[in-house]
Amino acid sequence: MTIGEFWRLLIGNPLETELEKSEKLSKRRGLAVLSSDALSSTAYATEEMLRVLMLCGAIGLAYTFSISIVIVALIAIVGFSYYRTIHAYPGGGGAYIVAHENLGETPGLIAAASLLVDYSLTVAVSICAGTAAITSAFPELATHAVALAVGFVMLVTILNLRGLRESSTIFAIPTYLFIFVYGGMIAYGIYRIASGELPRQVPSPEQFGQDLRPLTVFLLLRAFASGSSALTGIEAVSNGVPAFHPPQAKNAVKVLMAMVIILGIYFLGTSYIAAWLGVVPNNHETVVSQIARELFQNSALYYIVQFVTMTILILAANTAYTGFPRLSSILARDKFLPRQLANLGDRLVYSNGIIFLGIFVSVLIIIYHADTHSLVPLYMVGVFITFTLSQMGMVRFWLRKKSKNWWMHLVINGFGAICTAVVGVVVFWVKFEEGAWITFVLITLLIIAMKMIHKHYEEFSRQICLDYAKPPKPFLKHKVVIPVSDVHRGVLEAARYARTLGTDVTALYVDLGNKDRMENLKRDWAKWVPDVPIQVLPSPYRSVIRPIVHYLDELRDQEGPDTVVTVVIPEFVPLKWWHHLLHNQTAWMLKIALLFNRKMNRRYKVLADVPYYLRR
Amino acid sequence: MTIGEFWRLLIGNPLETELEKSEKLSKRRGLAVLSSDALSSTAYATEEMLRVLMLCGAIGLAYTFSISIVIVALIAIVGFSYYRTIHAYPGGGGAYIVAHENLGETPGLIAAASLLVDYSLTVAVSICAGTAAITSAFPELATHAVALAVGFVMLVTILNLRGLRESSTIFAIPTYLFIFVYGGMIAYGIYRIASGELPRQVPSPEQFGQDLRPLTVFLLLRAFASGSSALTGIEAVSNGVPAFHPPQAKNAVKVLMAMVIILGIYFLGTSYIAAWLGVVPNNHETVVSQIARELFQNSALYYIVQFVTMTILILAANTAYTGFPRLSSILARDKFLPRQLANLGDRLVYSNGIIFLGIFVSVLIIIYHADTHSLVPLYMVGVFITFTLSQMGMVRFWLRKKSKNWWMHLVINGFGAICTAVVGVVVFWVKFEEGAWITFVLITLLIIAMKMIHKHYEEFSRQICLDYAKPPKPFLKHKVVIPVSDVHRGVLEAARYARTLGTDVTALYVDLGNKDRMENLKRDWAKWVPDVPIQVLPSPYRSVIRPIVHYLDELRDQEGPDTVVTVVIPEFVPLKWWHHLLHNQTAWMLKIALLFNRKMNRRYKVLADVPYYLRR
Repeated sequence: MTIGEFWRLLIGNPLETELEKSEKLSKRRGLAVLSSDALSSTAYATEEMLRVLMLCGAIGLAYTFSISIVIVALIAIVGFSYYRTIHAYPGGGGAYIVAHENLGETPGLIAAASLLVDYSLTVAVSICAGTAAITSAFPELATHAVALAVGFVMLVTILNLRGLRESSTIFAIPTYLFIFVYGGMIAYGIYRIASGELPRQVPSPEQFGQDLRPLTVFLLLRAFASGSSALTGIEAVSNGVPAFHPPQAKNAVKVLMAMVIILGIYFLGTSYIAAWLGVVPNNHETVVSQIARELFQNSALYYIVQFVTMTILILAANTAYTGFPRLSSILARDKFLPRQLANLGDRLVYSNGIIFLGIFVSVLIIIYHADTHSLVPLYMVGVFITFTLSQMGMVRFWLRKKSKNWWMHLVINGFGAICTAVVGVVVFWVKFEEGAWITFVLITLLIIAMKMIHKHYEEFSRQICLDYAKPPKPFLKHKVVIPVSDVHRGVLEAARYARTLGTDVTALYVDLGNKDRMENLKRDWAKWVPDVPIQVLPSPYRSVIRPIVHYLDELRDQEGPDTVVTVVIPEFVPLKWWHHLLHNQTAWMLKIALLFNRKMNRRYKVLADVPYYLRR
Repeated sequence: MTIGEFWRLLIGNPLETELEKSEKLSKRRGLAVLSSDALSSTAYATEEMLRVLMLCGAIGLAYTFSISIVIVALIAIVGFSYYRTIHAYPGGGGAYIVAHENLGETPGLIAAASLLVDYSLTVAVSICAGTAAITSAFPELATHAVALAVGFVMLVTILNLRGLRESSTIFAIPTYLFIFVYGGMIAYGIYRIASGELPRQVPSPEQFGQDLRPLTVFLLLRAFASGSSALTGIEAVSNGVPAFHPPQAKNAVKVLMAMVIILGIYFLGTSYIAAWLGVVPNNHETVVSQIARELFQNSALYYIVQFVTMTILILAANTAYTGFPRLSSILARDKFLPRQLANLGDRLVYSNGIIFLGIFVSVLIIIYHADTHSLVPLYMVGVFITFTLSQMGMVRFWLRKKSKNWWMHLVINGFGAICTAVVGVVVFWVKFEEGAWITFVLITLLIIAMKMIHKHYEEFSRQICLDYAKPPKPFLKHKVVIPVSDVHRGVLEAARYARTLGTDVTALYVDLGNKDRMENLKRDWAKWVPDVPIQVLPSPYRSVIRPIVHYLDELRDQEGPDTVVTVVIPEFVPLKWWHHLLHNQTAWMLKIALLFNRKMNRRYKVLADVPYYLRR
């Protein structure tokens, strides 16, 4: 099996462009594909909040439910804001588009960079949390956490390279399983609490560290910031509007509302039960695993909850896998990223973006040893920058549009913008040292890179465009040169081709000091290629490349701009891949030197590869 | 500063080929350059032996001196054997040459592979042991051991890229410093023991592990095998004969004798003092450091011994840095390794071999966490294979030559061969599990690779040689094709060049489904390049490459072998390195596809790069 055949087996056969229209999402599929990110955050948001509150012991944990209510309120506000965005941008209201159109290029790029970083971290965090769900249930797998997590990344990457529709079928089942199983667990927990079967538990003092800290406002803010990781993923629906079946906006809005309601209930439920059961986070088992173990003991139900949590978390990565490449392709089309990211692959997905995302996330997971807890602080900054810029863009949009009820929409989006901005500043402040600064640096570098790329592409278009161009005059003279190191069949083919190009052909031989070799060559040359004169170039420093470059430099100086010089390079094409390591080094180095030598008179120099195919 | 300028600053300006003759070693320099490997092994050989003996507690350590005497006898035997080799092979008696000439190709390759692996491990072991000398004196550096070791590898690599003479000046001083300082320490130690100032010490039972093992013959053999690491490096002189000033053999033999005598005395002295002082190896401090601390307390003399030990160990790596690239170049000339290893770099050293060695050793050090003790078992196998094959080759040599006193020489070399073969088998047996198997696998793979490379190069020579060749007939027809995706200045240049090649020019446009774009292109094309017809190729799967390859396939089927097809490819040459990431992806993919597509009619297809130089 060749590499090509293996690839096809992995990602499937090419799909025709015509099929693109049918690769669209129904409401049910849309909820499955676009909500997994948001819903899955219930698996870690409560835990991240508890990890801060536990620093003050039981006194801290008493605030769990109150903070959760504030966060749910924030979820509702953000949800309403996006409701308006979807209606205003039925063609896709990603933060980049909204911020770019309404606020200008730089805010647009800030939103885009935040989103790209955010998508990558969504994948990393979700996959690490999913791995933690498994290692909580099977502690013996804990030593293989990094390998497991990277394996999951590869799996999701491959599924996405196969194309959107196939992925969404695969992803619909686990999302709905999670909605039912996790919802069932919360309902069952609350029922048992309400029926008085489950007594309130107080954590024992040993479960906290030795030195407890006093409860401060800063610490409560940190807990709030950590819990806000429940908000991640809400924007996915408004980014994904164009992927819906028409009527796209209507379908998207319904999905958004369903998602926000489920998210709010699940998050609040988890926090409530965790507080009731006196759950304290530890490093061996996740909070959700502790809750499920308490409710179901070690029955099959416990393992089902863990498994379902793992699958939704890993599939949450899928939201980013539809978002990241789509956004990169839009940015590439707008000339802010390299062009190759704009190409639809042969399975109708943006393959280059997907592959890049897979590699980048694997590196992140390896660096952070698949530890969710150390990745979350990096994650949050981008989320709130995106939220804020997107809402601010909408405020500007209503101010300009002044459509029906515009002031009401403006109030909703404005309030959303203020809330998310305040939370964003808080998150950045309290999480700065834990890792938020890394995200900040990454986003800044990405913005600078995008601006540089844009500048270059603009410059480039100006340089190659035909305004003020004149049709070039034909060349009057054609000089052909063949560098040779030996006389063999490859060289004969090169000479045969060179003769086709014209009568002015010269062979170049670089003398590295071996006299016998030179005499042999001259004799063979006179016998086999008597019609082409050969020129010997001295090389006191044993470089093969420099004398040839020097000769061509001088040739260009002698000849005017009406002469074109073709360098005919004999090149062997071996049969097996590893044979490449054994041939053509000089040919490659010569080509690089000739192509990139900017001191040489620039134009009218062409490199012609004459391949000689080896049979064995 | 460009990369090229930085490189020149690092390794110096090019040297003329004429200078090669003057880059030769005097006796004094020769001792410095070629003996550092052998002498430096006194820094770890005793310790490696003690580490095995200590498993039996004080009873084991009592054997230290007896085993050391056996090892010194072995050193003398090997030394005498090489004495004969140098006289028989004044042009360089490396094990590869001796074994290849006298025993045949496969034994030669076994010797060569063993030597190459051995050279790499010499560098790794010496540098790690040198790092250990430093971390013994300054325990706070222990956490940076890997970084220190890799830094030293880079240093030695750069020094060697600068060329032999300059390196040997740098290396002469530390070798002589080591000879004087270390010799002084041993003399001082023995003097104090003899004068009764230094009482015999018995190690306390706590210095050994909890469960001591019984003393077995196998364990004594393991101790002997570990101590035999003192023999590593003896072969360096006979490999390096051609590097000496004439009379080369005479000078080399004198250096060899001096080296063997110093090595024997130093090794025996170290073992004697270590046994007298009751030194027990531990993981924080080397044995030599313990001896020096005992003799000099923490005075400046202690630090001088450690520093000098470190420098000789690090410079021992230099022996391998002269040997490895020289042997690879010989192997490359004999077509057993890729050709580029045979080229003398512009500083008159085999730069590619040096760079490869530096990278490979750095990887080894990182994998083994710069731990000498775990690298030594890998090291020893290759050494004894080399010794044995080299001596066996000499036996065969005397049997064939039958020159004066041949039977005496034969006895010496035969005895050497038997001794080293026996020791080699013992080493392999007792060290197998500790890592000798890795070396065995490496050597085997290397032999297979060299055989495959040789077979390919032989096959290749046969394919391209001109026996039975006929001069190729001239082409009757020349078809030119330009793939275009847009009309811009680069394309106009390509068209201008294409017109020079002939009148039969066709442009190819791949239709990816964007109708507007195609209409624009057709209009622009008609305006700017009206004389060249344009052909639109459909691409339902959005591949740019496949339709072009398909078109050329069909063209080749229609045309006979008397037609040559040139594919003219417009290519942008950007100004800055990172701009390359933003351009030409399609051009490169097309070139790779066309060059390596073996299904296509193979010949008469040429790729012509027409560069368009960007100004900004």
